[in-house]
Amino acid sequence: MAVQRALEQKVDNTAPAQQYRTDLPPTPIKICYIGGGSVGWAHILMYDLALCPELTGEVRLYDIDYRRAERNAAFGNILQSHPSTVSKFKYRAVKTLTSGLKDADFVFLSITPGSLDDMARDIAIPARFGILHPVGDTVGPAGHVRALRCCRLYAGFAKAIAEHAPKAWVINYTNPMTACTRTLTKVAPSLKVMGCCHEVFGTQNLLAQLVEKYLGAPKPHRSEIKCDVTGVNHFTWITRATWNGHDLYPIVQKHIDEPGVVRPYKTKEVLATNNVFHNKHQITFELFKRFGYLPAAGDRHLAEFVTGFLKNEDEVHRWAIALTPVAWRKQKVLERIRTMKQRAAGKAAIEVKHSGEEGIDQILALLGRRALITNVNVENQGQIPNLPLGAVVETNAAFLSDRVQPVSAGPVPAPILGLVSRHVYNQELIVEAALEADEQKAFATIANDPLVTIPMDNAWKMTQQMLAATKPWSYSTNAPR
Amino acid sequence: MAVQRALEQKVDNTAPAQQYRTDLPPTPIKICYIGGGSVGWAHILMYDLALCPELTGEVRLYDIDYRRAERNAAFGNILQSHPSTVSKFKYRAVKTLTSGLKDADFVFLSITPGSLDDMARDIAIPARFGILHPVGDTVGPAGHVRALRCCRLYAGFAKAIAEHAPKAWVINYTNPMTACTRTLTKVAPSLKVMGCCHEVFGTQNLLAQLVEKYLGAPKPHRSEIKCDVTGVNHFTWITRATWNGHDLYPIVQKHIDEPGVVRPYKTKEVLATNNVFHNKHQITFELFKRFGYLPAAGDRHLAEFVTGFLKNEDEVHRWAIALTPVAWRKQKVLERIRTMKQRAAGKAAIEVKHSGEEGIDQILALLGRRALITNVNVENQGQIPNLPLGAVVETNAAFLSDRVQPVSAGPVPAPILGLVSRHVYNQELIVEAALEADEQKAFATIANDPLVTIPMDNAWKMTQQMLAATKPWSYSTNAPR
Amino acid sequence: MAVQRALEQKVDNTAPAQQYRTDLPPTPIKICYIGGGSVGWAHILMYDLALCPELTGEVRLYDIDYRRAERNAAFGNILQSHPSTVSKFKYRAVKTLTSGLKDADFVFLSITPGSLDDMARDIAIPARFGILHPVGDTVGPAGHVRALRCCRLYAGFAKAIAEHAPKAWVINYTNPMTACTRTLTKVAPSLKVMGCCHEVFGTQNLLAQLVEKYLGAPKPHRSEIKCDVTGVNHFTWITRATWNGHDLYPIVQKHIDEPGVVRPYKTKEVLATNNVFHNKHQITFELFKRFGYLPAAGDRHLAEFVTGFLKNEDEVHRWAIALTPVAWRKQKVLERIRTMKQRAAGKAAIEVKHSGEEGIDQILALLGRRALITNVNVENQGQIPNLPLGAVVETNAAFLSDRVQPVSAGPVPAPILGLVSRHVYNQELIVEAALEADEQKAFATIANDPLVTIPMDNAWKMTQQMLAATKPWSYSTNAPR
Amino acid sequence: MAVQRALEQKVDNTAPAQQYRTDLPPTPIKICYIGGGSVGWAHILMYDLALCPELTGEVRLYDIDYRRAERNAAFGNILQSHPSTVSKFKYRAVKTLTSGLKDADFVFLSITPGSLDDMARDIAIPARFGILHPVGDTVGPAGHVRALRCCRLYAGFAKAIAEHAPKAWVINYTNPMTACTRTLTKVAPSLKVMGCCHEVFGTQNLLAQLVEKYLGAPKPHRSEIKCDVTGVNHFTWITRATWNGHDLYPIVQKHIDEPGVVRPYKTKEVLATNNVFHNKHQITFELFKRFGYLPAAGDRHLAEFVTGFLKNEDEVHRWAIALTPVAWRKQKVLERIRTMKQRAAGKAAIEVKHSGEEGIDQILALLGRRALITNVNVENQGQIPNLPLGAVVETNAAFLSDRVQPVSAGPVPAPILGLVSRHVYNQELIVEAALEADEQKAFATIANDPLVTIPMDNAWKMTQQMLAATKPWSYSTNAPR
Repeated sequence: MAVQRALEQKVDNTAPAQQYRTDLPPTPIKICYIGGGSVGWAHILMYDLALCPELTGEVRLYDIDYRRAERNAAFGNILQSHPSTVSKFKYRAVKTLTSGLKDADFVFLSITPGSLDDMARDIAIPARFGILHPVGDTVGPAGHVRALRCCRLYAGFAKAIAEHAPKAWVINYTNPMTACTRTLTKVAPSLKVMGCCHEVFGTQNLLAQLVEKYLGAPKPHRSEIKCDVTGVNHFTWITRATWNGHDLYPIVQKHIDEPGVVRPYKTKEVLATNNVFHNKHQITFELFKRFGYLPAAGDRHLAEFVTGFLKNEDEVHRWAIALTPVAWRKQKVLERIRTMKQRAAGKAAIEVKHSGEEGIDQILALLGRRALITNVNVENQGQIPNLPLGAVVETNAAFLSDRVQPVSAGPVPAPILGLVSRHVYNQELIVEAALEADEQKAFATIANDPLVTIPMDNAWKMTQQMLAATKPWSYSTNAPR
Repeated sequence: MAVQRALEQKVDNTAPAQQYRTDLPPTPIKICYIGGGSVGWAHILMYDLALCPELTGEVRLYDIDYRRAERNAAFGNILQSHPSTVSKFKYRAVKTLTSGLKDADFVFLSITPGSLDDMARDIAIPARFGILHPVGDTVGPAGHVRALRCCRLYAGFAKAIAEHAPKAWVINYTNPMTACTRTLTKVAPSLKVMGCCHEVFGTQNLLAQLVEKYLGAPKPHRSEIKCDVTGVNHFTWITRATWNGHDLYPIVQKHIDEPGVVRPYKTKEVLATNNVFHNKHQITFELFKRFGYLPAAGDRHLAEFVTGFLKNEDEVHRWAIALTPVAWRKQKVLERIRTMKQRAAGKAAIEVKHSGEEGIDQILALLGRRALITNVNVENQGQIPNLPLGAVVETNAAFLSDRVQPVSAGPVPAPILGLVSRHVYNQELIVEAALEADEQKAFATIANDPLVTIPMDNAWKMTQQMLAATKPWSYSTNAPR
Repeated sequence: MAVQRALEQKVDNTAPAQQYRTDLPPTPIKICYIGGGSVGWAHILMYDLALCPELTGEVRLYDIDYRRAERNAAFGNILQSHPSTVSKFKYRAVKTLTSGLKDADFVFLSITPGSLDDMARDIAIPARFGILHPVGDTVGPAGHVRALRCCRLYAGFAKAIAEHAPKAWVINYTNPMTACTRTLTKVAPSLKVMGCCHEVFGTQNLLAQLVEKYLGAPKPHRSEIKCDVTGVNHFTWITRATWNGHDLYPIVQKHIDEPGVVRPYKTKEVLATNNVFHNKHQITFELFKRFGYLPAAGDRHLAEFVTGFLKNEDEVHRWAIALTPVAWRKQKVLERIRTMKQRAAGKAAIEVKHSGEEGIDQILALLGRRALITNVNVENQGQIPNLPLGAVVETNAAFLSDRVQPVSAGPVPAPILGLVSRHVYNQELIVEAALEADEQKAFATIANDPLVTIPMDNAWKMTQQMLAATKPWSYSTNAPR
Repeated sequence: MAVQRALEQKVDNTAPAQQYRTDLPPTPIKICYIGGGSVGWAHILMYDLALCPELTGEVRLYDIDYRRAERNAAFGNILQSHPSTVSKFKYRAVKTLTSGLKDADFVFLSITPGSLDDMARDIAIPARFGILHPVGDTVGPAGHVRALRCCRLYAGFAKAIAEHAPKAWVINYTNPMTACTRTLTKVAPSLKVMGCCHEVFGTQNLLAQLVEKYLGAPKPHRSEIKCDVTGVNHFTWITRATWNGHDLYPIVQKHIDEPGVVRPYKTKEVLATNNVFHNKHQITFELFKRFGYLPAAGDRHLAEFVTGFLKNEDEVHRWAIALTPVAWRKQKVLERIRTMKQRAAGKAAIEVKHSGEEGIDQILALLGRRALITNVNVENQGQIPNLPLGAVVETNAAFLSDRVQPVSAGPVPAPILGLVSRHVYNQELIVEAALEADEQKAFATIANDPLVTIPMDNAWKMTQQMLAATKPWSYSTNAPR
């Protein structure tokens, strides 16, 4: 769940104060937030909107659980009355998707597909066949079955948006990012769709730290690290990185070569940290050493994209990462709700500050108020010429007035092309499987996943059990009301 | 000759004062300018460099006529001592290309291929067959024969640069832009090459004027007009334009619909202006009306790209344009040299001011000091998916640290695809003809040009005469010393 | 009208006696013939079916003029009772398209779009603007307006076939071949569609004659001439030809070099022949000389694909061809009907013999009874990598059981790529214009045609007059009953 | 080693007697056979040439072991004097490759890269890491290291052929087929190259048997089974199969559904057969059931292309296949040499009969004496649009005079695209690794192979040991003398 991950990761919010344009009046916009009861990304957006004087308007929160949307709307309006707030926004919960979408300019999607209990089953069944998932929301059997649930819901969203907000920009935050985004582009090709994720920012931050450590400069903001970005979400690669003209690859190599940076970890030292996001970049660095290019996602995600890191739990820990229990996720959500309630009730202080995320900058660029170049997940229109056209990939793009135009990233380098393309084909296939309710394609996706190394008849049994445990096929692809 | 055109066109230099970065020391660079004796683009660069505090270094001027290079070097150094100058640059003329290129970071090319007498013959022979050229430097039989001369010279430049300055950014200003740039990419694929032209800026300016006229806003700077740009140089199209979120196409239509804006012109009123750059956008507007998209080049250029505007001189004038006599071009060069001499001798005042051109911004972006999105001529890597890969096309691109990455422009719209693609195939072919010294391919290019509507056996005769009059084949493709 | 052309052209029917398979029983098939009242291609099929022992079944004739279909059905049944006939087929006229299509295995289309009076107008209006058409059924303004009429009818056919005979092979003979075939593939992508034309056979025959003349071998059957075929219908090129391993290009060159083979013709000698199909291959040879590749269509067609052969009637005759009056076409149809009636009434002898056409061989290959490699018009799936995917092109293809798989023809050679691609884009555009009833696209097609060299405002007037004279837009795209 | 496999497999040689053309004299040809000392494919060619009256000429045998070439040449000439022989061919061993290639019309390649001891090490080292290879000559770590040896040798062959026999058809039989063939096309793009393998014929035979069993027809010859063929060598798929219009997929399903056809096998029953080619199509049928498409190679090969069949030796046997010991291979070669010697000495009878292979038919088609459609390995020119251009793939092709033109096979079906494309990327990469002597790319290939499921640091160790054990890098890429 990207929403939880977002709040954990130390995103750098020390950016130099936003320079807002004062020569133009604020642009009025209507936002519809699907999954508007969430306490993750929805809250990030609320805080950042509060601080942006260039925008005004209303935010409609739609959620399958209306009370959660209501609770968030109330909290959003509380934020708007905070003394630090500089914008004028009105929040309201909506009971139907249709009313939320009507003429919206921007639609955000950030949902939990099914329940956390579904997610627990996604992970538990493969575990019985010896297949472990540190995350379980992107690829691996768990990610694919989650995609089955997601895509059918998203087909409904796509149709509803195309009908009620055909000119809106549609911005996805839900995982599996690629499958969700691709469903939107496939079901409603006329929509303007992108998927946004901050995972690359984390690696830019790592590089910014290395600039400070090895180049003797003050730690630059991550956006000063100029990167060539290519791949698919959570398996994105920074194939070149510079800062002020300095090539940063030799510096990464220097860092790896330092004693103690790369080493096997022991189970007990990993568990002792009591941190499910424990990440010493051991898999990042192993892939960099062996393939010559730098992956740009957390190790927990990377481990799910390549065969050989997750044979058993000791092996998982050897690479300095841990599995993420679903129980922990449940606990986290409860904590966040409690905090919000306390803040809403005035029992805890509210501090309105920038999240360091980029959503607002993207909106401003799409409105034609500035230009922006950043990484984003959109259909491959040739930006990566050696991956299939139409597949959703992650590269840099230019955000111009009402346009997200990916920049030419060039071909995925030969040594990593096999690793990456495998997932592209698989993600294309799971979307087809979901939209066509085709179990054979669902199986083919799972059988072809790097985590699935068991005999084919066993893989078939596992798939049958997983499909039975979830009910992806029962989700209607019709537009929700 | 782009160099002359540059100084004629009223480029908007009223941009808000450049905001230069002061947090980083100036970057030292070495520039080699091929055609360094020119009094057009070379002077523009000198003035703009003088005003940029973020750069320092040296500029080597190479020219087939060493004395001209020397004269320019002296003038450049005079500029550097001017009180308004804020940078430190040293200018020197070089006797060999090799010494000019050695370890250069940037190589500019802006030459006259052959003499103005060659150009006069390029235009005079077709005229005897009833084929007129308002410009004669891009397409049409004159443009193609000029390309034959250019490409063989450029093949030599490409090899020399690849040997002596393999990491340099190579920036072409010479016409025919597409053929010259393509020769560089074809002969030396490892080079970093682009071709730059300000013709699109002119149309952005026209749109900025319409914003002022019809939207009641102060005339914005042309860079505030956000455009989708596609096509080939001098036949570029702005397929969408907005300002602050306003779609500008309806405004163009409104303008056209006003009485008197579109009308046939009479020969005498055109000649009375005594202005070879006379341009009432009549061809621009005719193409917009008939094809639904806005071309972004001067009418003199556009008329050479589409059959039917140049049947005879009266017909030329009917569209409010005039032919450009080569005698006029010769006169202009002499005037500029005279002016420079007077300024150098202190007999005329020197005013150091921004040209409004973008060369310096591009350099700063390539050095990683900022980001820039602008239009540029580079190889098609998929930015225009319905034109051939490898051909040089003009679209927007993101200029990032040491990268020019074209943004995905999408397919050329159906109604203009035939008009545009025809020239793409033709320009690919003339480069092949030149590099292979293949007369059949040269003829095929000319026979397939929109201006050539005469019987095929006559077209063959004309081609033979033109090839005999120039001596493109005698130019060595070996690197100049 | 291909139907008339077919009977004029001396197709070589001296093929060695068909070797029919006797190890398998005849395959029963159902044929639906749209345009079944025609006296051209429909008759050819009847004769060839009569002589094929491997097929049996029924042929349903559908025509907008039911009496013509009835007349043909009666004649077909007479042929079936002829002593030379070896097959068992039943012919019947059908009153509705639906009843004709029901479960058909093969659907042939060979219609006259509109009337011959429509065709007369298609040709007369451009003539007033100085634009001449020797044929007027493929490209040029006349061809494009004919396409407008055709495509809307064909959209209806496509839907009807997709509904009532979704598994049928659909074989088009109507001109404009490319636009008709493309409409079928575009409107009903799931259909199995091809367009067949014998124009290439004529050039194979010419080459077979040259084999006899210059290699001293007995004249081989045209199918012994192995060709690389590429391009679009009526502008197809044989880019390599061999016979028994001998390269035939040098022999073509030898032939051209003989005195008298290539020379200007005089109007009176052309008219003296009183033969609208007069063809001395002067345009074929001119294109071969200038571009280095051999076009494979009659000169009357070729002249419509390249600027410069049709400036006025004397110029037309200079290339040894003549214009085809529509009055002549009307006369021809009447003659054929008269002959049929006489034969049906026993007043003229019936001779049942092979036409030399390939329709039956194609059917047998599609039924899996043999393999066949021949030229055909289908969507570009990569067989010509430098033309747009999806466009209908003509190359060789392998006919295998229920499959027509184009063979890789490689890229169109550089010198002719511009000539050919221009038409590909134009034909794609006219189909869009027709299906979308978009006058601007119709104009863009016409303005971009090689025959249209008049000023753009005149081209616009001409187009308006042509569109008013025909009523393409009034044709329903709904399926005929 | 394909050569041994060839003689083992029961290729159907009951084809109806070849129908040879008598209307043309035999064509004289010069063949160069690289690996001419082999006792596999070289012998097959000798027998088939002896029986073909349409060809005449000479065969030069080149081998790294000259005495073996001499022995084969002597035997070839003995065959030519056999009473059943109808052709005139002269065999001679050559000491240098240059003399063998001089002006050759056809060059065959069928070599052992390194020794059988090398092959033993290729298999033994991965076995120590738990990775088993039933064959070890195509993919898996053993196949990739074999490719490293092959490609460097083949680079030399490519250059030599391009220099001495630039117009020859180059036909590869050596495994790994794809890597060998690709090296030829990459190093010498101007050569006419293809790779031929009979593995698909075996599956056609299986289908012919099912026709007999379920359709009650006499068993047809395999060439009567019309197939859509797609994929890469040894992992080719028959995505559609028909006989006389009957779809054969339902019949395959019917067969699988019969009791006992699909079942787990026991180690002892597999070993009891004492047959390394034991094949009950269990993997073929498993893949058909799970993915919906029929693979067309022996199960020993298939097991190496998909994760999950080779976990340990019991698991191997469960699928009814066995590992092939290199000791067995050595023994087989000795037996064949002994047999040849006895035949040459007149101590064993020589029976000259057709092999059932297609080499001769291909030669006749390339000489323009007939047309042929069959499956072949050539560069992807678009015949499989969803696999990378340039990669060597296996599909049907039309063999016409001096042309092998692949037919459009359409996209690889979605459920198997991931399985197939993975190997395409890997095979492209191992060729690059070999030609660039790049160990990182060699590792990337191995790490990305389906058989390699061990931790990445272990995979690295294994790769290091394998590279050290072979000496691929010591092979010169210069042309052998």
